[in-house]
Amino acid sequence: MKITIVGLGLIGGSLAKTIKKHTNHTVNGIDTNAETIKLALSQGAIDTNIADTSLADITFVCLYPEATVDYILEHNFKPASIVSDVCGVKGFITSRVDKALSERGVNFIGTHPMAGREFSGYEYSLDTLFDTASFIITPTENSSEKCVNLMEDLAYAINFKKVVRATPAEHDEIIAYSSQLAHIVSSSYIKSPTHLRQLGFSAGSFLDLTRVAKLNEDMWTPLFLANKDALSGEISEIIKHLEEYKNTIDNTNASELHKLLKAGRILKEETAVL
Amino acid sequence: MKITIVGLGLIGGSLAKTIKKHTNHTVNGIDTNAETIKLALSQGAIDTNIADTSLADITFVCLYPEATVDYILEHNFKPASIVSDVCGVKGFITSRVDKALSERGVNFIGTHPMAGREFSGYEYSLDTLFDTASFIITPTENSSEKCVNLMEDLAYAINFKKVVRATPAEHDEIIAYSSQLAHIVSSSYIKSPTHLRQLGFSAGSFLDLTRVAKLNEDMWTPLFLANKDALSGEISEIIKHLEEYKNTIDNTNASELHKLLKAGRILKEETAVL
Repeated sequence: MKITIVGLGLIGGSLAKTIKKHTNHTVNGIDTNAETIKLALSQGAIDTNIADTSLADITFVCLYPEATVDYILEHNFKPASIVSDVCGVKGFITSRVDKALSERGVNFIGTHPMAGREFSGYEYSLDTLFDTASFIITPTENSSEKCVNLMEDLAYAINFKKVVRATPAEHDEIIAYSSQLAHIVSSSYIKSPTHLRQLGFSAGSFLDLTRVAKLNEDMWTPLFLANKDALSGEISEIIKHLEEYKNTIDNTNASELHKLLKAGRILKEETAVL
Repeated sequence: MKITIVGLGLIGGSLAKTIKKHTNHTVNGIDTNAETIKLALSQGAIDTNIADTSLADITFVCLYPEATVDYILEHNFKPASIVSDVCGVKGFITSRVDKALSERGVNFIGTHPMAGREFSGYEYSLDTLFDTASFIITPTENSSEKCVNLMEDLAYAINFKKVVRATPAEHDEIIAYSSQLAHIVSSSYIKSPTHLRQLGFSAGSFLDLTRVAKLNEDMWTPLFLANKDALSGEISEIIKHLEEYKNTIDNTNASELHKLLKAGRILKEETAVL
């Protein structure tokens, strides 16, 4: 197949590299940065740099949410081909492009490769980024089973560990918890005045809790706002549990504190495979 | 030197193993579990199992906080020798044993090896547990410089990466943030109802945030309550920042959200070496 990737950042670049590594598909790369194109060509991550978007069997648009919507609505794609986005929110994108593409005879299949790094840009893309990751596909009533299966096969071919299907709404509700909240909590954690005093007083737990505070605010700001209700609900939920701990500690209630900690430990153990 | 270790759990066992691995000191082990003693002897983690506590030059009492205090107050130690605890709270221990030991001519030096695992007990102890860890020493006005230096030398000899000195109060304030809060946040995070739906929707950020929810509630309950004011203050602090994020998201305030995320990212980058 001919696959075009628009936006050779961390995800787009890693898609290009994994497709070239694991399959015989040709990869056409489109990026506004001429240096990135040059580098990707020289590394064999892309075969060509052709601006015409109507040639590909699958087009991955790997831009920020609003830019993804604009790009998809403003370009022409091959009839009966697949156009996919890779954004971390799916309702926002799907509601804006699915019907429009369908009416033009193009198949929109939203996806979310569940992988990332604390670094952005093509130079950090890896041909191993997806080796332990899930590939989430969010079909709609317009999605043909054939196209969804083709995307699933491609995901397994480029070494994703698991493919999951969900509705855009399900995806957004769950991702508010499993990914977006992690970044909000990590960024909140680091803002204690005590943070500047912890030299030499920290171990693995601290490093784990604060790792993703190193985030790309340009990317995450629109992602959070495109999923605000679900994310706001999850922030309220963790605040509720933090307050429960605080009250229990303030009251020196050892038996209740022990009970709360034990419940969390058991929940973690029982869901370790999830 | 003759070193006695009381309580061969994760930390006591790892101290025994690292002392035997890196030094020529003899290690005497005391534990209520006969199987643990048998195993530690067979593995060479301890040289002897002698009940007499008055023979050692250094005694590490590696028990939970209240048991540590009771043990220290109820046993006799060699005059001019060092008795040390390894608890994660230092004010609680120091205020209860420092003066009493000093009056008996024994040197109390509180320490906190900043290392742990999600598993407890001798069977999980490692002779590499401290290789990337800090060893915190909390001297008091009764601590002789000679004894503090001796403990510092021992810590470096058994391969701690760094030795830090602090007052017990400083230690407890900082550890409330750098370690205790991490466990409370992780345990709170996992309690969202969405947790049971996240199969296939999670990546590294989620695993990082929830790793230490798998904690030993028997150990952490007394540690949290022995440091309740500082910990409660840190929980309030993170709730304040979470609420700031929630309000900003609820108000769809993109510029403020971007500003908050950027500030967190810069703080993380600038303190990456801490």
